[in-house]
Amino acid sequence: MLSKNQIKNINRLKQKKYRQQDQLFIAEGVKVIKEFLNSSFKLVDLMTTQSFNIEYETLISEAELKKISCLTTPNTALAVFKIPETEPLIDQGLILALDAIRDPGNLGTIIRLCDWFGVKQLICSQETVDCYNPKVVQATMGSLTRVSVHYVDLEHYLKETKLPVFGAFMDGNNVYKSNLPQEGILILGNEANGVSKPIEACVTDKISIPRFGELQATESLNVATAGAILLSEFRRGV
Amino acid sequence: MLSKNQIKNINRLKQKKYRQQDQLFIAEGVKVIKEFLNSSFKLVDLMTTQSFNIEYETLISEAELKKISCLTTPNTALAVFKIPETEPLIDQGLILALDAIRDPGNLGTIIRLCDWFGVKQLICSQETVDCYNPKVVQATMGSLTRVSVHYVDLEHYLKETKLPVFGAFMDGNNVYKSNLPQEGILILGNEANGVSKPIEACVTDKISIPRFGELQATESLNVATAGAILLSEFRRGV
Repeated sequence: MLSKNQIKNINRLKQKKYRQQDQLFIAEGVKVIKEFLNSSFKLVDLMTTQSFNIEYETLISEAELKKISCLTTPNTALAVFKIPETEPLIDQGLILALDAIRDPGNLGTIIRLCDWFGVKQLICSQETVDCYNPKVVQATMGSLTRVSVHYVDLEHYLKETKLPVFGAFMDGNNVYKSNLPQEGILILGNEANGVSKPIEACVTDKISIPRFGELQATESLNVATAGAILLSEFRRGV
Repeated sequence: MLSKNQIKNINRLKQKKYRQQDQLFIAEGVKVIKEFLNSSFKLVDLMTTQSFNIEYETLISEAELKKISCLTTPNTALAVFKIPETEPLIDQGLILALDAIRDPGNLGTIIRLCDWFGVKQLICSQETVDCYNPKVVQATMGSLTRVSVHYVDLEHYLKETKLPVFGAFMDGNNVYKSNLPQEGILILGNEANGVSKPIEACVTDKISIPRFGELQATESLNVATAGAILLSEFRRGV
């Protein structure tokens, strides 16, 4: 049985302001929650309609789950985890950087891509959607447990790095003909506006995915699908 | 000013049953509507809060737009177009086939990918979400005007085709090391279950995108991002 206060404390985590104050976030569904339980993330609360057979769980009704869930179709359980301290950023390996990605579904898909392609560090500009937004957490399918996400002053970071900085642009060099290194930073830009001017100034190599359709064809790819193709290009030569 | 009957006739197009009865579908937003206006699609009705300066338009209020829109944030205009007759399917070129893709956003993204990569024909199993679903139409960003979508008995079609049939599987051959032809069919499977058994039996070449992350890494890619990488692989050799 959930108290009014418990319901209030969970629902406030749907807002970024309170997630940052409380340093807590929500994960839902058995599969996603199990991924977090099997990681170094610290469980704070587990409310479930079916027992997980773990010590700290509260059995609740479907009606109660509905009161706290962020999903249109609530899925068995909701857990609250502590937001982990971010590990220090290491200037090494293949790093993905996001310049103001706004859509939670896109960020979730991109975190899953990083996981698949072994990209351990994801750097986000301060304008990028919060990775602990419930929609992002659901879309990552647990990949958040294996990718370290850093929110930084992106321009400042790029000015300091010694790694080559690749950026996705409509007029960049054909990525299929580019020599891509194993270490470097790949920047993906905002859904509507692409890479912003101050960030563009830090790019050392502009790359582009050639279009094979007619001239009138779609003017751009969705940022997550473009990211998929570019990460694949960085890795396929290995 | 919209009559009650007009509002009812538009809202019923949110259901597949009525889209098929009426052979009509909805497109929203100035950009998407203009793409359809500049194509061979036949406009039936245009309701807009800002004039397009075309003959058959009805100026409406924001409040009226809200009553007919499928979007949470209605965007200037809503148009009704005729569903075009499907062109005959030609067993030629690179063809993408979908086995029971359920998510409208995924289908929209995939249609946009076909447009980008010059894939003219998209074949969908009867279980695949309707491409004239309003969410699909919005996600395609107008690419529906350049990609011909066919709903067929997929198993029957694959048994008849003379083209090689490629399918995305977890245990397929490394796509980076595969010789991919310019003509063929690429099959993408359902979000949760992958390619179904009867369709798998028609596949001549199983392919797979290698995973570079740890063993525990995410067990699969989103179907649209996997499709992006595979279409890119088919085209990059050109």
